[in-house]
Amino acid sequence: MAVLAVDVGGTKLAAGVVDDGGRLVAAERIPTPQPVDAEGLWRTLEALADRVLGGLPVAGVGIGCGGPMTWPEGEVSPLNIPAWRAFPLRERFVKKFPGVPVRLHNDAICVAVAEHWRGAGRGSSNLLGMVVSTGVGGGLVLGGRLIDGASGNAGHIGHVVVEPDGVPCKCGGRGCLEAVARGPAVVAWAQSQGWRTGSTGVTARELVDDASREHPIALAAMNRAGRALGVAIASAAHLCDLDVVAIGGGLSQAGPLLFRPLEEAYRAHACMEYAKGLRVVPAMLGQEAGLIGAAALVLAGPRYWSAD
Amino acid sequence: MAVLAVDVGGTKLAAGVVDDGGRLVAAERIPTPQPVDAEGLWRTLEALADRVLGGLPVAGVGIGCGGPMTWPEGEVSPLNIPAWRAFPLRERFVKKFPGVPVRLHNDAICVAVAEHWRGAGRGSSNLLGMVVSTGVGGGLVLGGRLIDGASGNAGHIGHVVVEPDGVPCKCGGRGCLEAVARGPAVVAWAQSQGWRTGSTGVTARELVDDASREHPIALAAMNRAGRALGVAIASAAHLCDLDVVAIGGGLSQAGPLLFRPLEEAYRAHACMEYAKGLRVVPAMLGQEAGLIGAAALVLAGPRYWSAD
Repeated sequence: MAVLAVDVGGTKLAAGVVDDGGRLVAAERIPTPQPVDAEGLWRTLEALADRVLGGLPVAGVGIGCGGPMTWPEGEVSPLNIPAWRAFPLRERFVKKFPGVPVRLHNDAICVAVAEHWRGAGRGSSNLLGMVVSTGVGGGLVLGGRLIDGASGNAGHIGHVVVEPDGVPCKCGGRGCLEAVARGPAVVAWAQSQGWRTGSTGVTARELVDDASREHPIALAAMNRAGRALGVAIASAAHLCDLDVVAIGGGLSQAGPLLFRPLEEAYRAHACMEYAKGLRVVPAMLGQEAGLIGAAALVLAGPRYWSAD
Repeated sequence: MAVLAVDVGGTKLAAGVVDDGGRLVAAERIPTPQPVDAEGLWRTLEALADRVLGGLPVAGVGIGCGGPMTWPEGEVSPLNIPAWRAFPLRERFVKKFPGVPVRLHNDAICVAVAEHWRGAGRGSSNLLGMVVSTGVGGGLVLGGRLIDGASGNAGHIGHVVVEPDGVPCKCGGRGCLEAVARGPAVVAWAQSQGWRTGSTGVTARELVDDASREHPIALAAMNRAGRALGVAIASAAHLCDLDVVAIGGGLSQAGPLLFRPLEEAYRAHACMEYAKGLRVVPAMLGQEAGLIGAAALVLAGPRYWSAD
């Protein structure tokens, strides 16, 4: 059985074919066209899917997409894709591939599912998968099953509060993990402290490079982000009794520059006996995770799809 | 089918008979004997169970007990019962009632189960049940099932971090919800601010009474506890996508003195669209919750017992 997997993000569109062993046997990736209108973007995605399939029959379609969205209906309004507001993405694939299951979930949830199914969380029954990048998202697997929550948003650790009187968050709250640890926030904080002041367009990648050269402000910025992650993970571990946290996304590429302060803060706050054995590990599947997790919604439905 | 339900706490022991409609048809409650040795306490509990049963046949036994414990094995070491350290409580009931299911869980988890099964969370699929009392505990029901986590400790919201540089917690961490909002901590904070300075043995009940008379320090203490609860619940709602939080335990009796600052803090921090519909409600079942939830481990096993 081969499944079409689709991953829709603000910067790239990807489509692939995943076999029932969870192997990505074909994949193609293109930049998300900008500017574009709703139908133009759909036609681009449809053509990408056709190309990667090459006429292969499809036993199902799994889709990961940036949020927010209605779930499980799959009308999507991705923050970083202004062309789509309440766009019926799942319905379009249902019409294109009638008679097979078509399942759609948040892209960060698909990454968490992939890491549980075939990646760093394999064998664990209680995992939080995280993506630390332009935003901070995630997905929760508890008791061996994907947890959806009331509206398909469970796992969204980006809005766990790490500092109640902290910096404002785009969500309207204060001191959310995402407001401190998302890439652009880490860069902005470093600049506010004097790092590359006056420069524009500097990236988290450059900040990490400077931190690896022991630039003190860049290092402080990474420490601040790592600590916020450690505090939020301690809260999640105490609340959900996790055994693995797998962290992917651009900023996680910083390695020990991020993971060392993270683990220090985790150890300082996760003091209940049951939380001490938690393993915090880098995600394993890289940019393939989104496609593999989307496919798992279909290929491993009993574990990862509760909505039928 | 009638089930023996047992609830073991540091201040009281309770036993009851619960029918399969979830009705508590008989119950008896006694103070936990202190001081006592391990076997003496067991004999007291056994006699209480025999008395409440009055020879009735038993289809199963459900037990709630203060933690920590090994789960699902049920060797208990309740913090407030020094006589029992790794006491094989579940095994004792297995020997006493051979051939029927005997299931044991944390007492706060039993309260959450009861509120989901027959109380304030009835009809919800995603509930956090909380007990705010001498400690702060809880239990999580997600996707309609009790979440156990890796070691049976899921739901323990008392150690969600609400203030990373906050007051030390007995667990060894800092700024845990429990360190701020458990009854004795609220009283201690009020005394540190000048409330009934020099008095000993003042209670949370007296603090609540003074707050209801608008004593400014007592009010400030309740506000501080309520805010900490609101922040922790916002984190839990964002992470787990809840639809109901049901709060019981002694301090929750304070009503609006606690719930008003709680809801203000919740609204300030729970700003993601999907978290706005959450209902925070008082628990409904009072002191019966522990027995009813313990019975539900047996009577509604498919939802509340995953360990067989």
